[in-house]
Amino acid sequence: MSVRKPQILKGFRDYMPEQKYLRDAVAATFREVFARHGFQPLDTPALEYMEILTGKAGENEKLMYHFADQGEREIGLRYDLTVPLARVVAMHQNEIVMPFKRYHMAPVWRAEKPQRGRFREFWQCDADIVGSTSMLADAEGISVLVDALHAIGMTSAVVHINHRKLLKAMAILAGVEEENAATVYRAIDKLAKIGPDGVQAELERAGIPAGSARQVIDLVSTQGTSAELLDLADAKLAAIPGGPEAVAELRELMRFIGSLGVPHNAYTIDLSLARGIDYYTGPVYEAIVDEPKVGSVAGGGRYDGLVGMFLGRDVPATGISLGMERILEVLQEFDLFPVPPTTTDVFVVSLPDTLADAAHIARELRKHGINTDQSIQPNRSIGDQLKYADRLHIPLAVIPGSAELAEGKVSVKDLASGEQRTVDIAVLWEDIVRSLGR
Amino acid sequence: MSVRKPQILKGFRDYMPEQKYLRDAVAATFREVFARHGFQPLDTPALEYMEILTGKAGENEKLMYHFADQGEREIGLRYDLTVPLARVVAMHQNEIVMPFKRYHMAPVWRAEKPQRGRFREFWQCDADIVGSTSMLADAEGISVLVDALHAIGMTSAVVHINHRKLLKAMAILAGVEEENAATVYRAIDKLAKIGPDGVQAELERAGIPAGSARQVIDLVSTQGTSAELLDLADAKLAAIPGGPEAVAELRELMRFIGSLGVPHNAYTIDLSLARGIDYYTGPVYEAIVDEPKVGSVAGGGRYDGLVGMFLGRDVPATGISLGMERILEVLQEFDLFPVPPTTTDVFVVSLPDTLADAAHIARELRKHGINTDQSIQPNRSIGDQLKYADRLHIPLAVIPGSAELAEGKVSVKDLASGEQRTVDIAVLWEDIVRSLGR
Repeated sequence: MSVRKPQILKGFRDYMPEQKYLRDAVAATFREVFARHGFQPLDTPALEYMEILTGKAGENEKLMYHFADQGEREIGLRYDLTVPLARVVAMHQNEIVMPFKRYHMAPVWRAEKPQRGRFREFWQCDADIVGSTSMLADAEGISVLVDALHAIGMTSAVVHINHRKLLKAMAILAGVEEENAATVYRAIDKLAKIGPDGVQAELERAGIPAGSARQVIDLVSTQGTSAELLDLADAKLAAIPGGPEAVAELRELMRFIGSLGVPHNAYTIDLSLARGIDYYTGPVYEAIVDEPKVGSVAGGGRYDGLVGMFLGRDVPATGISLGMERILEVLQEFDLFPVPPTTTDVFVVSLPDTLADAAHIARELRKHGINTDQSIQPNRSIGDQLKYADRLHIPLAVIPGSAELAEGKVSVKDLASGEQRTVDIAVLWEDIVRSLGR
Repeated sequence: MSVRKPQILKGFRDYMPEQKYLRDAVAATFREVFARHGFQPLDTPALEYMEILTGKAGENEKLMYHFADQGEREIGLRYDLTVPLARVVAMHQNEIVMPFKRYHMAPVWRAEKPQRGRFREFWQCDADIVGSTSMLADAEGISVLVDALHAIGMTSAVVHINHRKLLKAMAILAGVEEENAATVYRAIDKLAKIGPDGVQAELERAGIPAGSARQVIDLVSTQGTSAELLDLADAKLAAIPGGPEAVAELRELMRFIGSLGVPHNAYTIDLSLARGIDYYTGPVYEAIVDEPKVGSVAGGGRYDGLVGMFLGRDVPATGISLGMERILEVLQEFDLFPVPPTTTDVFVVSLPDTLADAAHIARELRKHGINTDQSIQPNRSIGDQLKYADRLHIPLAVIPGSAELAEGKVSVKDLASGEQRTVDIAVLWEDIVRSLGR
């Protein structure tokens, strides 16, 4: 047999059982939070026509995995879950009830330079509301985001909120030409990472006058309470096109977030929050964890120009995106969401002469909702079988020895403590449920 | 805005909410059954090196989606979940505890001719046991398969069981050359579809003498009880290499399936069962539903030569595979596994002057595990908002009118019957839990 070297592509990862348990638990939690808020699930193919995928990508096209298929069609792996949403809204417009609240949790692929915590295949968990211009939709996005993060133990996350039109108005106030607004968003987005001097240099390199650049950075760096910052923006931007509208929307958004009952310490206005993505048109936000020092774990915003791209008209949309891999990394590093290393509750030892009894016991336990692994190694010693169960972190073992069975009993062993006791088969499942602390 | 035509690739499908609910429910049920038997979850990347993927594919290579990536690596989309399992076993051999019982539910991709019920992207739900030669492992595969099918309402499925070495011995008995065994498996696999004459023609086209072909078809077509068929095989194949071994393994397997408590009408020996896949080496089986007339819904078998391909030695393995799309089609066609069209329990109407009350009510309901959609259209009429909820099949609506709120009450409307009643806010969640029949 010619042996090929087993290898995995760089930037890709296997989810071994312990990691998969954690991902499944987080995904189930998000699913529950999304459903709790009335969002509906959706899934779309991994592969799409390139013509569809490049709808909004622009310079990102070079990061897409794409190729010609057997029928010479130019196809590619989805780059995000937003373009597929736009395609679905256009193709299924007659069956979709608007506003459409959908969630989608699935992998996307980007041929980016692999680095720590950044993968070429990664899971996005998106919840979006399509078809509503109301700030109540944006407020619900933020409310769902806070609930999702709290549900996985990230209770110290604060959602920093800004508005694209506010940023733009501030740039115009500082003397930046309107068509350079996107350059400003992208540079400001790096403020926390490269600092004011770095942003200043980047803005100047992009042709923005030094004085204007400095003024933008000063404006967005203003600190204060949400109310103070909104008052400041109100005063400074009264005469700038788009300014008053943005401030009014943010005020309404803050009011709605309050009425939805989001805890006050879970959100704040942050004039420096930009988000790098070009397509946002209204409120933008990012959930930031400062304690422990983690940074941004999720984000979202309003993007009214994107979903309608296959319909030829604007379709309002707003939503959130949680990056699974980044979140898993944080949860593991700070042990915020402990998940047992196995879902198996009980291991039943198999012995050649009592195999049918062991199987009968395993079936009875399963019938009562107890996850039970019956040994498939009846010819190994009891000690070896128990060692196997212990290596799998299974908490309890049942040993059906023939002498005890004759008296209607079995031994139950706690594999962590080593403690062993004899239990009546008639009450075995209740005994085990109790031992498991259920 | 230049408008691109929204289109999806042929052979691919969107899972709109109602279909996604069903897929999620089936996947959750399978996950529960697998965990109940002590299987552990695994996930691997969609993309792999082609050198890995082509490990066992042979002629299937032309059905793989593959291309050169940005780094000129030859990569492709996984074709099944078995080759990735082999790679994982080789790469993680030091951390995996053998026998390794893993399940994997994920999409695979094949550029096959699209046809009704056959997709180019489809979900496989596999549960395998790696590292055990015991027939107890095969018996557990069949036991899990029966449990999984029963759990989704396919209670009439019967697992047809055969053995690759039995088929081979029968072919040799009929005078077929040993190296043509794989041809025989592939032809016999089509017996139900193309009939004995079709198989006869196919075998002859492959160069097998007409008499031998007829004899093979006659042998495998023998009808009888499992015991009769095993006795027949025992008698006929006593002198054929591999025959006695196969019969002994099948007898042991049947005994183990019995001790595992699998219902007797859920499995049977079927000498004509072949399975098309080349790599099986021992018992093979398929779950067949005759009533309603559905045919094969899942299968499995032992494949001892495959998992070790990246290790350069044989690693025994056996397992089952359930095809999600086929199963969903059958469940929907015969309404075997009804799933509600939404997971949302309650719709809370939003009115401009009682928005904070509505939000408060929604949060309270959610706190008690009730999935609640609070309207994001406070400026639409109550009638329009209720119409929206009804189109989404949400069973109940809460209408927080200001007059009733002043008395600590709200209206609750059953959207199916139209019946409306007034409920005290203090007992609202209990009232709703009762109305939902929980």
